[in-house]
Amino acid sequence: MKIQLALDRLTISDAIRLTEQVRDYVDWIEVGTSLIKEFGVASIKAMKEAFPEKVIVADCKTIDNAKYEFEMCYEAGADIATVMGVSPAATLQTCEATAKKYEKQMMIDLLNVSEERKKSLLIYQNAIFCDHVSKDEQEIQGLKNESNGSQSTLKSSGVRWTVAGGITFDPIERLKKLNPTAVIIGSAITKADQPSAAAARFRELIGGTPYGNVR
Amino acid sequence: MKIQLALDRLTISDAIRLTEQVRDYVDWIEVGTSLIKEFGVASIKAMKEAFPEKVIVADCKTIDNAKYEFEMCYEAGADIATVMGVSPAATLQTCEATAKKYEKQMMIDLLNVSEERKKSLLIYQNAIFCDHVSKDEQEIQGLKNESNGSQSTLKSSGVRWTVAGGITFDPIERLKKLNPTAVIIGSAITKADQPSAAAARFRELIGGTPYGNVR
Repeated sequence: MKIQLALDRLTISDAIRLTEQVRDYVDWIEVGTSLIKEFGVASIKAMKEAFPEKVIVADCKTIDNAKYEFEMCYEAGADIATVMGVSPAATLQTCEATAKKYEKQMMIDLLNVSEERKKSLLIYQNAIFCDHVSKDEQEIQGLKNESNGSQSTLKSSGVRWTVAGGITFDPIERLKKLNPTAVIIGSAITKADQPSAAAARFRELIGGTPYGNVR
Repeated sequence: MKIQLALDRLTISDAIRLTEQVRDYVDWIEVGTSLIKEFGVASIKAMKEAFPEKVIVADCKTIDNAKYEFEMCYEAGADIATVMGVSPAATLQTCEATAKKYEKQMMIDLLNVSEERKKSLLIYQNAIFCDHVSKDEQEIQGLKNESNGSQSTLKSSGVRWTVAGGITFDPIERLKKLNPTAVIIGSAITKADQPSAAAARFRELIGGTPYGNVR
C-alpha cells in the first residue's frame, strides 16, 4: 500500500518545502487541483523537477478537452493524470488513449459517481480508480472516507485503486486489510504540526518503503 | 441575447490579441478551462486587466474545493465562475454562498447532467445555467448543441441560461427564438480566418450591441 501525498492550497514553493520534509516516507506526490488551477502547469513541472524520483500525480480533474489536458500534464512530467468518472464516455476514452500513447497512467476519480456507474467504469481495466469523498463533502457535510461497498467492489475486481478523503491514522488498519494500491493523504500530513513526524507515523503504520513506481 | 466568447487552447497573449480584434462585437469573455489549467489564475487577472469593461467568465469547472476556487476566481477579477452540475450538493451550495458573498455570479455547467437532475438543479434560481455539449463529445462523437428538451425547460423556468458547444452561424436563428441569456461561441470566432469578421457577423445575426452586464 503506497502513500500518495496530496498537496493542496499551498504555493508551489511551500509545496516543495513541505515535500522535502516528507519525501523519505511517501511514494506518490499529488499536485492538487488547487495548485494546477492557481499556478497552472508550472506547478506540475516544478514538482517533477524537484522530485524526479517520485511518481507525480497531476490531479487535473479532467471532465472535457481530455487530449489537450492529459498531454499537457504528461508533457509537464506527470506520471498519472486524473479524469472525473462523471465525464462523458468520449472524455474517458480519450484519456485512456492518451495515457496509452504516452505510456503513462490515468486515474479515474469516482467522486459523486453512482454505484451503478462505478461498475460500468470497470471496463477501463488499465486505469487506477480513486474512491473519493470530496473536500466539500468532508468540510460541509462532515463525511469521511469510511468502509463502503465501492471499496469491496474495487478490491474484488482486480483493478488498481486508491482511497481519498479525510484519511487520518484511524482507518489505516482497516485499509491495510483491503490493501488498495495507494492511500491518499492530504491535510493529516500537510497541516500537521510536524509534517515529517506525521508522514513517518503513516509509513510506520502502513509498512514498506517508498519506491515510487506506479504498480 | 449576449455573445460569450470562449477562449481556449491559446496562450494568454494570443487570447488578449484575439479579444482585442473582436471586443466591439462580443459581450462576455470566457477564460477557458484550458487557459486556467495551463497558466493558472494569472490568465483571469490578465483578461480582466486587458478588458475591464467586459464581464469575465472564469470557466474553472469547479467540482470540489468550491470556496477556495470561487474566491480565487472572483479575487482575480472574474464576474462569473463555473461549477459542474454533476458536483455534490455541498459544492453547489458553497458556490452559491460564495457568489452571494462576493455579489458575483455562478454558472452551472450542465455537461453530462441527467434530465432529471437538471430539473432538480433549478433550485439554484440565481445561477446562470449552461446547456453544454462538450468539446470531446463534439470532436469524437460529432455531437452539436441542437434543439433539445433542456433548452425548453430552461426557457420556461425563468432562469438565466446559456448554450455552448460547436455553435456556428447555422443555429443562431433558432436560438434567437429561444432567447437564452447568452450564446457561447468559441472556435467559430477564434479559429476563423478573420476572427473580427466572424464576430461581426455573429453580432449582426444576433442583433443588439455589447454592453457587458450580467443580466
